[in-house]
This record gives sequence, C-alpha cells and structure tokens, in this order.
Amino acid sequence: MKVALAQLNYHIGNFEENTQKIIDAIQKAEKEGAELVVFSELAVTGYYPQDLLERKEFIEKAENAIQKIASRCTKITALVGGPSINTGSKGKKLFNSAWFLNNGKVEDIKHKSLLPTYDIFDEYRHFEPNRQFNILELNGKKLAITICEDLWDEQPTQNEFGKDKLYTRSPLEELSKLNPDLVINLSASPFSYNQEDWRKNILINKAKKYQLPIVYVNQVGANTEIVFDGGSFFLQKEGNIPVELAYFEEDFQVVDTDNPITKKQEQKDYIAKIHQALILGIRDYFGKMGFKKAVLGLSGGIDSALVCALAVEALGSDHVRGLLMPSQYSSDHSIADAIELAKNLGIQHDTIPIQNMVDEFESQLNPLFKNLPAGVTEENIQARTRGILVMAISNKFGNILLNTTNKSECAVGYGTLYGDMNGGLSVLGDVYKTDVFKLSRYINRNNELIPENSIIKPPSAELRPDQKDTDSLPGYDVLDSILFKYIELNQSPKEIIEQGFGKEMVRKVVRLVNQNEYKRFQAPPILRVSSKAFGFGRNIPLVARYD
Amino acid sequence: MKVALAQLNYHIGNFEENTQKIIDAIQKAEKEGAELVVFSELAVTGYYPQDLLERKEFIEKAENAIQKIASRCTKITALVGGPSINTGSKGKKLFNSAWFLNNGKVEDIKHKSLLPTYDIFDEYRHFEPNRQFNILELNGKKLAITICEDLWDEQPTQNEFGKDKLYTRSPLEELSKLNPDLVINLSASPFSYNQEDWRKNILINKAKKYQLPIVYVNQVGANTEIVFDGGSFFLQKEGNIPVELAYFEEDFQVVDTDNPITKKQEQKDYIAKIHQALILGIRDYFGKMGFKKAVLGLSGGIDSALVCALAVEALGSDHVRGLLMPSQYSSDHSIADAIELAKNLGIQHDTIPIQNMVDEFESQLNPLFKNLPAGVTEENIQARTRGILVMAISNKFGNILLNTTNKSECAVGYGTLYGDMNGGLSVLGDVYKTDVFKLSRYINRNNELIPENSIIKPPSAELRPDQKDTDSLPGYDVLDSILFKYIELNQSPKEIIEQGFGKEMVRKVVRLVNQNEYKRFQAPPILRVSSKAFGFGRNIPLVARYD
Repeated sequence: MKVALAQLNYHIGNFEENTQKIIDAIQKAEKEGAELVVFSELAVTGYYPQDLLERKEFIEKAENAIQKIASRCTKITALVGGPSINTGSKGKKLFNSAWFLNNGKVEDIKHKSLLPTYDIFDEYRHFEPNRQFNILELNGKKLAITICEDLWDEQPTQNEFGKDKLYTRSPLEELSKLNPDLVINLSASPFSYNQEDWRKNILINKAKKYQLPIVYVNQVGANTEIVFDGGSFFLQKEGNIPVELAYFEEDFQVVDTDNPITKKQEQKDYIAKIHQALILGIRDYFGKMGFKKAVLGLSGGIDSALVCALAVEALGSDHVRGLLMPSQYSSDHSIADAIELAKNLGIQHDTIPIQNMVDEFESQLNPLFKNLPAGVTEENIQARTRGILVMAISNKFGNILLNTTNKSECAVGYGTLYGDMNGGLSVLGDVYKTDVFKLSRYINRNNELIPENSIIKPPSAELRPDQKDTDSLPGYDVLDSILFKYIELNQSPKEIIEQGFGKEMVRKVVRLVNQNEYKRFQAPPILRVSSKAFGFGRNIPLVARYD
Repeated sequence: MKVALAQLNYHIGNFEENTQKIIDAIQKAEKEGAELVVFSELAVTGYYPQDLLERKEFIEKAENAIQKIASRCTKITALVGGPSINTGSKGKKLFNSAWFLNNGKVEDIKHKSLLPTYDIFDEYRHFEPNRQFNILELNGKKLAITICEDLWDEQPTQNEFGKDKLYTRSPLEELSKLNPDLVINLSASPFSYNQEDWRKNILINKAKKYQLPIVYVNQVGANTEIVFDGGSFFLQKEGNIPVELAYFEEDFQVVDTDNPITKKQEQKDYIAKIHQALILGIRDYFGKMGFKKAVLGLSGGIDSALVCALAVEALGSDHVRGLLMPSQYSSDHSIADAIELAKNLGIQHDTIPIQNMVDEFESQLNPLFKNLPAGVTEENIQARTRGILVMAISNKFGNILLNTTNKSECAVGYGTLYGDMNGGLSVLGDVYKTDVFKLSRYINRNNELIPENSIIKPPSAELRPDQKDTDSLPGYDVLDSILFKYIELNQSPKEIIEQGFGKEMVRKVVRLVNQNEYKRFQAPPILRVSSKAFGFGRNIPLVARYD
C-alpha cells in the first residue's frame, strides 16, 4: 500500500492555517499516487488545546475543519487527528480521534484508548477513553488505527515505584486479534533529549511482538513550551526502519509499505538536537504569537550570549536587540564581551548604566532602611532596575523579552523575581548550566560568535564585588548531577547521597529546589527539552512542607 | 452507631502536624464514646499533594503516619484518608484510599472509584480508580465507604455540551446492592460561592434515591489557592440534615446516627462567605508557608483598601504594613484616603514618592526613545517602580507582598506585569470588581474601616492625568456580567451576544481576556472562591489562536 506520511507543524486553534496545510498535503499525496495520507494526532486543532476543548465554539470549528478536509478526499483517503464528540450519555464529552476521510466524507472515526495523564500530558481531563476495537479496511488491506499512547501500554509507571505497567489494557493486543495488515499510529510525541531512543524502541518492540509493520506520523514544531521533533517513520515487522522523516522541520514522504525505498536521517548528538529544539521553539513562539522582534539584556555572561546567538539564528539579526546595563559591579571585560558578542552577531545594541536609578532607589528607601546592612535587597534592586529598563524597550518598540535563566539557576532560585526572571519566553530554563557550556561551544563550532572569554570566565551574577556563583553553590558539574537525579530521575535525597554525593550538599541543593517553587510559579513559559521541565509538567503545591 | 465527624485543617506534606491532629481527634472521639471517627480525604497528606505523590519518600512518610495513627486505634475505629500503593502489576501505582484502622492496626483499605480530573482536580494523574465494591462491617453495622467524587457520578459533564453524566459508573449503585446501613463519605470539597448548594443537593439526592443515611466529612482550611470550607454533616435517608459542622473553621462532633441531636449552622450570604474564605486563605497561606508579616502598596483605591482590611483581620494589624507611593498623577484625595485607611486599621505605613526614580528611568531611556510619544511604556515604568519599592520592603523586612489585582482586571489584563501584578499571593484575583464593592461595604458593616471615599470614587489606575477605568473598559457591572458568562459559565461570545450584550463590547472583552493569558501565566497564586478561577484550574495554551 502506498501511504503518505505528512509531518506538519500545527498551530493550536489556527483552524484556517492547519486546514490549509492538511489540504495541501492531501493534494500532494494524491499527485504522488498515494492511496492513504496520514496526519498526526489532533492535527486540526494542534497539540495540545487544553481547556479550549471545553469551549463549544472551539469544537464546532474543529468539526467544520474536518468536514472541509473530508470534501477534498474524493480520490484519496486521509486519516486526520482531531477531537470528536462522545454521543453517548455517559463519560467525558469528547474523544481524541482519528477521522477516516474517504469518498469526500467522514466514513469512520477511531478513538484513542490510552490517555496519557502525567508530566505535560493531561488528556483524561478532556477525553473519554475508547473501549471498542475494530479494524478499518482500505483497498483490501486491514488497518489497525492507533493514536500515540495506544502503543505505549508497556511503559513503566511514571512514579517509579516499580517496573510495572502504567496501563491495564493493551490496544494493540486487542487489535492484533483482528489480523490487521498494517498498524497506523497518529502521534504527538514531544522531544526529550534524554528519552530520544525510548520512543523508537517502544514501537520496534511492538512491531516485532505482533509481527506488524507500523506507519508512525508525529507532528513537528513548538506550541509554547512543548517542542515536537517530527522524525516520523515506517517500521517493518522485523523491526527495521527503512524510512525516516526529518527532525525539527516539516517533511512529507510517500512510502510503498510492501517495497519501501530507504530514506535515513543523519544521526546527531544530543547537544545538536537541543540546539535545533531551542531554535524551533523560539521561532514558533514568535511566529505563532504574531511577534517579530526580541530584546534581551546582555551581561557579558554565557547565558545571555547563548540566548542571543540562538535568537539570531531563529529570528535573524535584524530582529534581535541587546541592552547592556552595567553597574559599578560589572567588570570591564563583561561590557567588552557583551559588545563583542553583539558585533559578532550583527545586532543592534545599546547601553544604559543602572547606577543613577539604583542610587535613587536606595536614597528613597534610606529613611526606612536606616542603618540596616546592604544585602540581597540591594542586589535585587539592581536586577529589577534592569528588568524595568528592558521591559521599557519591550513596551516601546514591541520587542519581546527573552529570559536567559538556565535550569540550574531556575532550580535553586538563583535569580531575582521581577528582575532577571522576567521575560515572555525562557529559552534555557530546561537546559542545565553544564549543557549551556556545551551549547555555546556548539554555536562556536565554525567561528567564534560567543566570545571565548564569556565561556571560560567563572560564572557570576556581578551584583556585589568579586561575586562568583560558586560562593553559594557547588560547582555546576556536581550541582547539575544532583539536580538531574532529583528532578528528572525523581530520586530521593537518600538515594542520591547513597551514590556518593555529600550529605550536606545534597540536603542543601534539595532544600533550595523546594524553597524556590514560589519563584518558578511566576516564571515565564520554559522551552521543554528534557523529560522533566519546570512548568506545568511538574506540579508542586506551594505551601507544601517537605524536604 | 455513634460516629465522630473530625473536620480538620491539614497542611500538605506536614505529616507530623497532620498526624498529631488526627491522633488528638481520635482521643477526643474515644473520650466522648464514639465507636467510629471519620476524617477527610487525603487527611494525612493534605489535599492536594500533586506531584509530591510521585516521590517515594513522600509515600513512605504517608504510610508511616498511617501506621502511627493505627497504633492509637485500640479502643476505637478510625477511617483516615491517605494514598496507598497499588500492589497490582498494572495501572497507576497509587490509590486514593480510606484506611480502616481498628484493633491497633490497618484492618482494611477502600479505594476511590471516581477520580475527578477537571478544573483544579487532577487525580487521574496520580491514582488508579477502584473497580471492586464491598462493604465494611463494624459493630454489626454495614458501612459503605466512599471518597468524595464517588457520590458525584450524576453531575453533568464539565464541558457542558449537554446534560449527560460525567462518569460511566456509579459506586453507590454498586454498594447499595450490598445492603449497607450507612454511607460514609471522606471528602475534600473546596469552596465555590456560586456552587454552594450544589454539593448538599447532590448528596441529598443520593440519600433519598438509595434510602441511606450519609456521614459526610469535609476538610477545612486553605492550601495555597484552594480553600476548603468544611461544613461536614450527617444526612438522614429522608434527605434531612440534622447535624452540620462549622464553616471555615475546624470542628468536631459525635453523632448518634440513630438518634441525632440537632446542630445547625447560621446561614450566611455569599459575600459573608467569600469574606470568610479570603481571611482563611490569607491566614493559612502565611501560616503554612511560615510567614508572619505582609506588606502592600496603598493607592487610596478600593482594591488595596479591601486587601489591607482582610490582611489585618487575618494576620493582625501589627503584621501588616502599607506603603504609599504617590506620583504626579496621584490625586490629593488618594493619599488622604490611603492614610485614613492605615489609621483606621492601625497599621504601620510609610510614604515614598516615585517621581525621582521615574524621572531617572525616563531620562536614561530618552536617548533611545527620542521623540516617541509617551504612553503605556511610561505608565508601566510607574507601576514597576512601585513594584521595586514594595519588593524592597519585602526583601529587607521579610514582609510578604500581597497582590491587590481583582478578577475583572486580571481578566482583561488591566495591570502591569512586574508592577502591580507582583505579589506572593493574590487575594482578590477571583473576586470581580462588583463584588469588591460589596465586600468593602461588608467590611464596613459595623464601622467605617475603608474610607467611604475609596468606595464611591470612580476607579482609576492614576497612571496619567484624569484617567478612569471606564476610559478603556465598559462599566464594571456590564464587564463583570460578560466575564462571568465567558469564564465561569463557559458561554461562547455568540451566546453572550444573544442575551442582549453589545456585539462589539462582547468581542472586545473576550479578545482582551484571550490576549492576556501571557500576563496571567506569570501572576501570583490566586485564592479561589468561584467555580472557575484563573490559575491551574483553567489551562489555556499561550500561543493558541482563537477568538
């Protein structure tokens, strides 16, 4: 059977654009002689619409889009992901469905059985699970239609109390009894650098176990925090993947499932993948929000330098603007490094020293503060003065502020709320500092865009004389190891200590993570590149007491 | 049967305190001759622990707490809510359970069947539903144990596509077949002023339908945003409620289910209830976070005056501090009103005019702004300068900043991010402006604490000369009506227009709500008093395009 894999970048709620993209791909598939064209999960709406699914007008628009697409399917068949209304009298009022469009109309609908409700996934909030299994027939072939998580029943439980299975049912076990020829999987599977092989292995195991080929169509592109990496593929029953689509960009391929022509993708290391994910994340955030221009503060440090370089790649140097805001604690090299960066990247940059404003704040507060010693309050005034200045540029010229906080800082609360934690989008909030260094080296792989000095100097917030990050934190290699075990691997402090990390240090780091939930609560959306990012995939109640 | 209803205020993750409270109530129940003492849902952990439930050390602590409590149940039986591990090999690894403690040990565990996963509820994220139904026997009585949502199977679907039922199963239908004598319901049901009668009616209908008495034990107290209002009760099979416990405070009552002694609560109107909810919300946020003192900016307007009065009730006048930050646009009466309020409430207050700092910002930005006209940028600089000042007081003296934005403003984005949207807790973010007026009148019911002038003057942000809220918004009565229909009732713009509101106005208001998701994304936690508050009970993807 000739099947077209249409790997597209959908914009949540932008029915007009999503519908047009789908129709264009249908026409292309038709021209290239495909019998069936497969789109990804929730293609008409984009993934994931969250509580927009509770709005009648949203569901009506989705259904209208499906009808419009169906009317174009006169000479070809399409499988398109979208919500459908549960017409039964009980249960959630929607299904997460694959619409089978044929002969110019909706001929069948298959619903998703396993609804992921963990980490960033929240599908049981809106959807009723499917409990009936049957097969679709097309041109003499029997198709088993599955949607994303339907093939993931054998994954371990998320909370890691054991190696048991998260789900009580196996959709493919049921469908395989009906002797299908081909499994189709409409997906919306986001990128996580530390789970990159997991997805393929899960599907390879399924193909081999049931001796069935699988057409897997993922979506690509970012919707706010979540980055879909594409990489759709055709998988043979022996477990080989002869055809793989591009990563981090739209792609389209017609596959003869009986006689596939090999198409492979270049293998990249995880830093190169994170690099692609962040560029796509920035570009789609701006594109989908209708923004063009970015602004950010340039400190001369590595985090702002990296974000600036990524923004220039994503948006173009004409659309990125830097603001230097030196204080009395800024070293000469910081200013020089920031200017060199701006010149290397060819971006507009301006300088506004903050001292006058900081002095004015301190002078006005003096009658209240009297002789109390200077400390965090005064450091925060500097950071917040910068926050005001860069937001003023944002407000006046329409440039969206990019946040430059990295995951290590975000984890331990090393940043000022309403100061350097400001921004419309956090680019590095899911990238540990150790990976910030690697990404900066990667950016410089051809020529030095980020000044070498910004990479090699000891990290410092420069909010007091001779300050270094290591004054109050362990070295980033140790810190990031502890954080990864606590956050991504969900290990207990006891387990981490047992692996050889100092007891006091582990306790201190964990305490800092826990004490700073309140800061992260008000942080900008964070581009997610790991299996556990801060944000709505990690919910910790603020008032909770724990260690 | 003599049953004790123990309505307590639990602190999430504070196992030591929760356990001690439960043990104290067990001893009291024993002394008063009760056979059984009932606590609420997830009592040992507090409701709701969210992803702390994914941490092994958290679950171990919860189980240790249950064991400790069980050892005290030698002469009395207790039903205590807490998580339990699913020992099966499939499904989520936890149940949401009622632990049956008898003879000094855990004698049985019953699990929750219906897991609410909508609005603020997220239980399917962590728990596997129960599918087996059986009865507990105690002293010759057959008990049907249910947990909160288990009795709510007949509620309509949340997304309001119809009048159908949200759930496919009915736990009480199953349990009633086993001929129980009494239904026990361990609950964690939060306060919503616009759904106050719903809860009682749902349970009354169940009692009458199955001709069974119900012991309903709710929790009380706030955990960050969510306020539990208590109001536990004993409900007879005819639908009468002879015994009702207090609202918004801990309470305890032994009830002879065969011969109950009547105990009723005073009926209050919704404004009085919101008042109690907000006081409890503030008090518990501070108490559970370990904070003592609050600070807030006093503008002379009604919102900050109301928050200040509520904070004084919750924390005491010695623990609330006001900061006046007048600008050139502040009217004389604003300053006078703010000072009068501070004096009426007996709180410390200071004044720092913002003009010098604002001038310094504008002068430093002038080379970049050149001759561009002044506008929102300059208004935001004022609001953000105030944000820095009040956070400086917070940082220096440890007073937590209370946010004073009301729900109407929060909805339409009438506020400055990193300015007046700052704060550790939003007190009025779920209270519409029209209710802000009513609450202020209520505060003044005995004597004028909030200056009359703050209540009657036209609302204004005072960020430019002669500014009024109505310059850019409809009157608050119309605005709040549209907002309530769009947000709480989830009506479409079309439906709202059909009810007689101007088309342009509805479109404008809805557009403002939708365009300001990005501001609310970074807002402080909001005390929830309605059926649909901004925050984690209402998830809208930022990049979504819709109208």
